[in-house]
Amino acid sequence: MSSTQDRSNLVPFSSRLKEGRALAEDVWSIYNVANLPADCINLGQGYMNFAPPKWVTEAANEALQGVAENHYSHPKGRMRLRQAIKNHYSPKFNRDLDVESEILVTSGANEGQYSVFVAFLEQGDEVIMFEPFFDQYLPSVTFNGGKPVYVPLHPPSGDSKKPTSNEWTIDLAELRRAITTRTKMIIVNTPHNPVGKVFTRQELEGIAALAEEFNLIVMSDEVYDCLTYDGKEHLRIANLPGMWDRTVTVGSAGKAFAATGWRVGWLIGPPSIIRPTLAATTRIVFCTNSPLQEAAAAGLEQAEQRGYFKTQIAEYTERRQILTEAFDKLGLTYTLPEGSYFILLDISNVKFPEDYPFPKSVLGRGRDFRACWFIALEIGVSSIPVSEFYCEEHANIGEAYARFAFCKDTDTLAKAAERLQKLKSYIQ
Amino acid sequence: MSSTQDRSNLVPFSSRLKEGRALAEDVWSIYNVANLPADCINLGQGYMNFAPPKWVTEAANEALQGVAENHYSHPKGRMRLRQAIKNHYSPKFNRDLDVESEILVTSGANEGQYSVFVAFLEQGDEVIMFEPFFDQYLPSVTFNGGKPVYVPLHPPSGDSKKPTSNEWTIDLAELRRAITTRTKMIIVNTPHNPVGKVFTRQELEGIAALAEEFNLIVMSDEVYDCLTYDGKEHLRIANLPGMWDRTVTVGSAGKAFAATGWRVGWLIGPPSIIRPTLAATTRIVFCTNSPLQEAAAAGLEQAEQRGYFKTQIAEYTERRQILTEAFDKLGLTYTLPEGSYFILLDISNVKFPEDYPFPKSVLGRGRDFRACWFIALEIGVSSIPVSEFYCEEHANIGEAYARFAFCKDTDTLAKAAERLQKLKSYIQ
Repeated sequence: MSSTQDRSNLVPFSSRLKEGRALAEDVWSIYNVANLPADCINLGQGYMNFAPPKWVTEAANEALQGVAENHYSHPKGRMRLRQAIKNHYSPKFNRDLDVESEILVTSGANEGQYSVFVAFLEQGDEVIMFEPFFDQYLPSVTFNGGKPVYVPLHPPSGDSKKPTSNEWTIDLAELRRAITTRTKMIIVNTPHNPVGKVFTRQELEGIAALAEEFNLIVMSDEVYDCLTYDGKEHLRIANLPGMWDRTVTVGSAGKAFAATGWRVGWLIGPPSIIRPTLAATTRIVFCTNSPLQEAAAAGLEQAEQRGYFKTQIAEYTERRQILTEAFDKLGLTYTLPEGSYFILLDISNVKFPEDYPFPKSVLGRGRDFRACWFIALEIGVSSIPVSEFYCEEHANIGEAYARFAFCKDTDTLAKAAERLQKLKSYIQ
Repeated sequence: MSSTQDRSNLVPFSSRLKEGRALAEDVWSIYNVANLPADCINLGQGYMNFAPPKWVTEAANEALQGVAENHYSHPKGRMRLRQAIKNHYSPKFNRDLDVESEILVTSGANEGQYSVFVAFLEQGDEVIMFEPFFDQYLPSVTFNGGKPVYVPLHPPSGDSKKPTSNEWTIDLAELRRAITTRTKMIIVNTPHNPVGKVFTRQELEGIAALAEEFNLIVMSDEVYDCLTYDGKEHLRIANLPGMWDRTVTVGSAGKAFAATGWRVGWLIGPPSIIRPTLAATTRIVFCTNSPLQEAAAAGLEQAEQRGYFKTQIAEYTERRQILTEAFDKLGLTYTLPEGSYFILLDISNVKFPEDYPFPKSVLGRGRDFRACWFIALEIGVSSIPVSEFYCEEHANIGEAYARFAFCKDTDTLAKAAERLQKLKSYIQ
């Protein structure tokens, strides 16, 4: 038994918590509403300040009136939800999805991804992720013995005055150089958090060719698949020739139905990936909560006839515009997102007094941590520093940006837009 | 990259799935209602065939009407639930529990336990569990690099005609012999599934002394803490002198409020255990579903004034009696449980034709697998073979028993009791 390293730890915790920032105070806690002034407008964490549609919560309440709907679901997910996923996604994947072997309901997209890592990683296996990356990937990989390998998305050139997320690019030669004999998996995230990038066919084909050449699994995190703008088409890497067999696609009821706290997600993929992942999730959570699976099923069942996703895109387009107009007025550069609900604002030109009374938690981190703190306290709008989405060595790229979430009602966004004009006096 | 072992697996799954029965068809799937005749009465899996109390589901519906209640919770759990847990459990632990550092809400008790293993196990660490054991412990330990070590609960002697669960005993010398320099943790489960045993003060003191001597964590699975019968007192090992600092206690809203499908559980323990476990659960699920946390909070808030747990014990006592009377009439020996909601029936004397058309899934397993299948198909009452709760080497002890769940309404149990009388003609 190893000796106690800390008087408060009678038994030391696992060494896996020493990697992957597992015990560091995460960015969500630092910029949590609890740490900020009460009247600060929260455009930090990506959750909605509005409720799910009434017809979806009503379905949840109906489920609560039942008996079976309050008890264990099958670990694969409730049949009604699996059937609804099949009906919704089969046309999108150009195949007749099998509810028994190709669909798996998980306790949020997050737990689904974690289960894939449990199911496939051996000690020392490498997982490639594009930077900036959704911060949960990192510890989820290291907890399961994996080693994250980073390939950057290259930011738009400084000349680009009105860059779109499409100007964040991947370099396929760089991706190829990152692949070793220990590479097991590539994580693709489209539409991308935090960049908003919707990967192009050419980019996906390039990634797919390498996955085939080196026999890799692709985990395609597509939780924002229903949120693309300006007619941009969401493409699925699983649909490229030969890719179905090695791709697992991740979806989320929370993102689709403004219910991030329901913890209902799903995986779609071939039986060779779904079966081991089912074995993993069955042991991790046994099953996902039943009443909200029923509600998610109702959501997918009725979305089409209600024109729900179309309306939602129009609403988010309006929300996006409120913020982009505010940034335009300030003359600040930002990345216009083609998907998801985040805008990266270039904060390089935002000046703040270096002797501002910053809390310990943001000192010693990137410049963006201090900038976001300053903006939250002085302007009254919170955002998330983007260096958190980079590995330590590349954090300097992220330091130039703050991420603003526009999954908020228009009144809130309009008020934030107004407050943000006060930034004018801090722009160099 | 290792080569493909199976043509359907382009990329082989992790070797961790080759241990701990992870890919074997689990007992819950074999004896699932879907595999049994439609009119078979299901006393197999331990979930209720009745709904949660109305005043609890109403609280869930109220939560669904809100905004924040449909979005991400804090990874520690919603404050209302943590506060309710504090108020309910502080008197039981004789301490003023701290909602920030000593209480952690998890996505079911199962995910809470899994998170403790993630947080504390190093490759090769040993975890001691008493047999029979709740089957999820085994793969949850091996998935995280741990090695399960089994210490038997010794069944009542054959002379005991009316044994109670108290007659299943532990041998402290045996427990001591099982401890090595790699032992990290002991799992205690009281009230016990599937035996129904409520551990005595003397037994817990014996385990505690060894945990102190060898600096071990105790994971005390007490999800049936509100279900003890005949005035039997539930004792908490965390309350023994010196044990708070090394014990994490597991609780469950599903068991307490007849809502096994809500996936809301909790851990109570010292900051040295809760903090690393929070880091683990935050990455595994991020947080637990929000609306049903609110409902669980309402449950704990109102249970006392409604006399809910007292009434529930009376109801379960009646349910238990329906089955025990049926077994008494048959002259079969069973273990009278002092807690939880299972009865172990000794099926050694139940004869069945060895050439009965058994499905492949039960052949090659213990005799109890065939007995339970035969009883389900011929008598029309399903149960669970108890050898599943033993390691392979000790499966023969479990073969003598079938586990019947009595978390069903009295009409169903009465009908089952009647059907079970048909067993008479198969008793030797």
